[in-house]
Amino acid sequence: MPSGRKGKVAAGTNLLEAARELGVELESICGGRQTCGKCQVIIEQGSFSKHGIVSQPEHISAPTPLEQEYDREHSLQGRRLACAAEILDDLLVTVPEESQAHKQVIAKAATERVIEVDPAVKQAYVEVQPAKLGDPRGDWERLAQALEEQWQLTALEIDPQTLTTLQTALREGDFAVTVTIWQGKEVLRVQPGYQEGVYGLAVDVGSTTVVAHLCDLRTGEVLATQSAMNPQVRFGEDLMSRISYINSEPQGLTRMNRQIIQTLNQLAEKAAERAGISPGDITDMVVVGNTVMHHILLGIDPAQLGVAPFALATFSEVDMKARDLGLNLNPACRVHTLPLIAGHVGADNVGVMLAESPREHAGISLIVDVGTNAEIILGDQEQVLVASSPTGPAFEGAQITHGQRAAPGAIERVRIDPQTLEPSVKIIGMEDWIETGSPPPGMKATGICGSGIIEAVAELFLAGIINSRGHFLPETAERSARLEIDGTAAAYTLVDAQNSASGSTITITQNDIRAIQLAKAALYAGTKLLMDHRGIQHVDRVILAGAFGTFIDPFHAMVLGLIPDCDLEQVIAVGNAAGDGARLALLNMAQRRKAVQLARSTTYVETPLEKTFQDEFVAALNIPHSDHTFPHLAGLIPEPSLDKPRRRKKSLRSKITADR
Amino acid sequence: MPSGRKGKVAAGTNLLEAARELGVELESICGGRQTCGKCQVIIEQGSFSKHGIVSQPEHISAPTPLEQEYDREHSLQGRRLACAAEILDDLLVTVPEESQAHKQVIAKAATERVIEVDPAVKQAYVEVQPAKLGDPRGDWERLAQALEEQWQLTALEIDPQTLTTLQTALREGDFAVTVTIWQGKEVLRVQPGYQEGVYGLAVDVGSTTVVAHLCDLRTGEVLATQSAMNPQVRFGEDLMSRISYINSEPQGLTRMNRQIIQTLNQLAEKAAERAGISPGDITDMVVVGNTVMHHILLGIDPAQLGVAPFALATFSEVDMKARDLGLNLNPACRVHTLPLIAGHVGADNVGVMLAESPREHAGISLIVDVGTNAEIILGDQEQVLVASSPTGPAFEGAQITHGQRAAPGAIERVRIDPQTLEPSVKIIGMEDWIETGSPPPGMKATGICGSGIIEAVAELFLAGIINSRGHFLPETAERSARLEIDGTAAAYTLVDAQNSASGSTITITQNDIRAIQLAKAALYAGTKLLMDHRGIQHVDRVILAGAFGTFIDPFHAMVLGLIPDCDLEQVIAVGNAAGDGARLALLNMAQRRKAVQLARSTTYVETPLEKTFQDEFVAALNIPHSDHTFPHLAGLIPEPSLDKPRRRKKSLRSKITADR
Repeated sequence: MPSGRKGKVAAGTNLLEAARELGVELESICGGRQTCGKCQVIIEQGSFSKHGIVSQPEHISAPTPLEQEYDREHSLQGRRLACAAEILDDLLVTVPEESQAHKQVIAKAATERVIEVDPAVKQAYVEVQPAKLGDPRGDWERLAQALEEQWQLTALEIDPQTLTTLQTALREGDFAVTVTIWQGKEVLRVQPGYQEGVYGLAVDVGSTTVVAHLCDLRTGEVLATQSAMNPQVRFGEDLMSRISYINSEPQGLTRMNRQIIQTLNQLAEKAAERAGISPGDITDMVVVGNTVMHHILLGIDPAQLGVAPFALATFSEVDMKARDLGLNLNPACRVHTLPLIAGHVGADNVGVMLAESPREHAGISLIVDVGTNAEIILGDQEQVLVASSPTGPAFEGAQITHGQRAAPGAIERVRIDPQTLEPSVKIIGMEDWIETGSPPPGMKATGICGSGIIEAVAELFLAGIINSRGHFLPETAERSARLEIDGTAAAYTLVDAQNSASGSTITITQNDIRAIQLAKAALYAGTKLLMDHRGIQHVDRVILAGAFGTFIDPFHAMVLGLIPDCDLEQVIAVGNAAGDGARLALLNMAQRRKAVQLARSTTYVETPLEKTFQDEFVAALNIPHSDHTFPHLAGLIPEPSLDKPRRRKKSLRSKITADR
Repeated sequence: MPSGRKGKVAAGTNLLEAARELGVELESICGGRQTCGKCQVIIEQGSFSKHGIVSQPEHISAPTPLEQEYDREHSLQGRRLACAAEILDDLLVTVPEESQAHKQVIAKAATERVIEVDPAVKQAYVEVQPAKLGDPRGDWERLAQALEEQWQLTALEIDPQTLTTLQTALREGDFAVTVTIWQGKEVLRVQPGYQEGVYGLAVDVGSTTVVAHLCDLRTGEVLATQSAMNPQVRFGEDLMSRISYINSEPQGLTRMNRQIIQTLNQLAEKAAERAGISPGDITDMVVVGNTVMHHILLGIDPAQLGVAPFALATFSEVDMKARDLGLNLNPACRVHTLPLIAGHVGADNVGVMLAESPREHAGISLIVDVGTNAEIILGDQEQVLVASSPTGPAFEGAQITHGQRAAPGAIERVRIDPQTLEPSVKIIGMEDWIETGSPPPGMKATGICGSGIIEAVAELFLAGIINSRGHFLPETAERSARLEIDGTAAAYTLVDAQNSASGSTITITQNDIRAIQLAKAALYAGTKLLMDHRGIQHVDRVILAGAFGTFIDPFHAMVLGLIPDCDLEQVIAVGNAAGDGARLALLNMAQRRKAVQLARSTTYVETPLEKTFQDEFVAALNIPHSDHTFPHLAGLIPEPSLDKPRRRKKSLRSKITADR
């Protein structure tokens, strides 16, 4: 139990061997030496007619002296060590979860799911024949023989750097060592005696933020998560400006590469410190990132990604040594980068697919990861399509008059009362909403971040201050002093001078609205392209990935026409799905293979090649859209034909307010 | 011709394809594009009744425009490009040597032999599909496809460092590149356009001298040979003192490792400069060295090699990247170290076996490589045995009163007139022999090197100044003032003060003679052990390997009993056979496999474990030996039973003098 496997074995067989014969994988590090305590099992007692078994205490051998010693030191609480207990007659045995070889972890995602822990690097304890005169073999050959005899590992190699530590480790451990092995192929580490602990790092190198999860590769547990600003930001906020910097500066690539490596070293060091281990204990690493981050990290000039046809150096997964990147982890630590899909669709998107696995969900999933480019994944159990759409940096607060990055002081949420046309905002770093016309409650606003500008434009539309074409309505100016119209220039004062950190008003201008319209139209047009390719009219769920998605209000996103019509309950923000994908690939080898399958089976739709893209883009400029209807917003937004404000259904409005 | 292969092909088949079908490997870098000119063949004309062929000019297609262009630029002198010429009817074709794919080189060794050039790294020219919109694959995937289609290379990988250079090379070469590939598995280098030239380094890291041969891996030619003193000499002349240094100095290993790497970098740079290439053009390297040099080079602490049971870290061949050693060659350059045999029998001995291949010679070969330890190889077509014998450093001039390394000023040869007991010597750096009793001819002696002391002791014995037990004979002192006997202390003045650089006499003391007796007895006892193991009484040839062997006179070596009795014509000095072995393994993959077979099939005899070693050693202390006779010296040396001098046969004596 709980696998339900059943079978006959010779009397006297120990439970560990019996489990292996029946295909039940039990945990074991010491290799059956009754010392590691990983293979504990529960012997059920009584008559189990359902199984046709009478399981009695005398059907199993008495505890061995070694087992008793383990019990005294660690308390077995009635359990038995499977490697010590011999089967004498019928038994019903339960394998507790912690003794199962392939532990399972729950993957956080739009839908929680369980994955097995089956990492690339694993430990094995071995006892090696000591060196002796007359045996000319080297220590490595004796270790390899022990690994073959005790762990059935053949054709092993040893990293040349690890070879330099072998002789000392063997002698310190009195010829008993714990070996860390990569994919059953290469010895990465040799530690004296019996040691527990094998660790890996899952890293998402974002354009703005770098996140590292330090994982225990035996339990799947995340021991520490550290994040830092990508230091390349100083060379350019968006990808194109970083490529330009590299094109123009002779040392640009080296500089950016060194900085990101340095950041990864710092993250690893901090994470290790928090987990109480050393960076040298880290023997595996999985990295995701967009194509430009991926190339710069590997020391590849991203110049080709800046010009058509956007040629990647490689779109395959890359396996290498961490030391070749200058990473200060274990000297033999491995690095695996997830595969890429196309010039603008990177390993981060493959990570997102791995985490959200559209192929494993009924119905059509739309996954949107918004950055400077928006990557759009549309998939179901049959097919997955992906496109990249040039939204520009408006969604990140760039090219917006008072735009800024999401940081303390930035306006992240906006409401405009449709009656009074008075705004209230929520500022990052403050709990309460602020009525921006009232005296300051302590913290002043510094600008508007991406989610703030999206809500602001949607609220301006909902309040009837702008029409579906995004134009300020002159008649509204008569109702509120916040709206000033001066020819083509027009602006809505979101924050009064008294509530602004700079002492000047924070406004939303006609140009800001236009910038958001261009960005959202690009995103919608990309989505529409994929829907047309797939021949579908609606999606069943929308997943907003990335930090941006976390702060976006699904209702406002849909009001703006950023995402297609969908049940609002099925619009889900999943946070750093790319990083979650990296973690899955770190914990489970099958996930790495799946990543390759996903990357290679995904249909990439090149937006610039699509003739209809421009038409779709133009049609998507209106709020929410010129042609498409949004049944799930029925009654909640002004009719497209009307430019007059209309009150939303009270019920949903109050629901959303209550959600705050 | 000259292979004699014969067959039928469809009319219109080009000669390159036809050659392949018939199993004749023609050289080609461009892959049949009529541009590299490597596949030139000669079309014979006339009726060849022996072959049953009438080969007429009209039986072959006319030169193509591309072929004509090649002819104008490079002059084909009537030859045809096999890839351009189509077979229309019967032909007799000669493949000139330079067009044969597996060129052959002559291996310098005791017996010259021919080996094929079939290195680990090879070049291939490919034309790659340019990147285009709608093809999301990376440049690497397109290159891999081209290599598969044009060169049938599958499952290729690319070094991550090489990947960083790929995109630029492809675009500079307009998507035509020359690729350097290791073992058909890994791309090491991508150069724009069509390029010729692939280079490797064969290195022998000796305790005293480091030698590097830079080879052209297409022709097998040695382009430059550079040597340098091993900088580790400053930390200790012999291996044990280097191990002691590392044991006692915390940074000792790192320091010695860095110094040898630095020396290798300098040798590579100088050799490349002499050959007119850059160190970055070197993509393969084979290294041999004794076990201690091997371990220090790989960064492995040799401590275990200093104490029983003399455990190696590994005795297998090691394949790694040169960059992991800190070598400044091509960033993806490979390094291969030949396998080791046992704690005291290293890759240098495997190199010697490869170069001298005792398995391929009729009769019993004895190969002796003398350093601080003497490595002794005894083999024939059936079996190869090896032992290491602790000769100590006496043969290298250490522990000898006036001993020194072989350097200008050192006495390297000695003759003593059996009548007058007057010596004459040859000094390194001077052409002529010196009568040391006469006024100085310009250069003065600084000391005695290894070959000098061996000749001196043998000559003292031949002149009857010492007896077969190595003792100075008091009665001789009456005949010459050069011999002074003062109780147990006794010495023979080899160089008078006026001919000595220090101004003091250079003498051979009783202790010096004893040191040489101990060393030669250890060597002979080791040899005898192997002969006993093999069950043989005599050897058919003796090969003296290493720099030491080159300067030793076979006659004197045999008079001393350093080597067993053998036809003097069959005692051959081969110089740096270890380095030659490294060169063979660099030029030919089969030689690397053979090295592994040799290392693993050689029987290692552990001298300290052999009970008879001590007895053999004691018996071998006498000159030439207490028990064994030397039929080939019959009449040339004093009877062992007599302590009186006896004149050698005039004929041989004058023959030897003539050889000088």
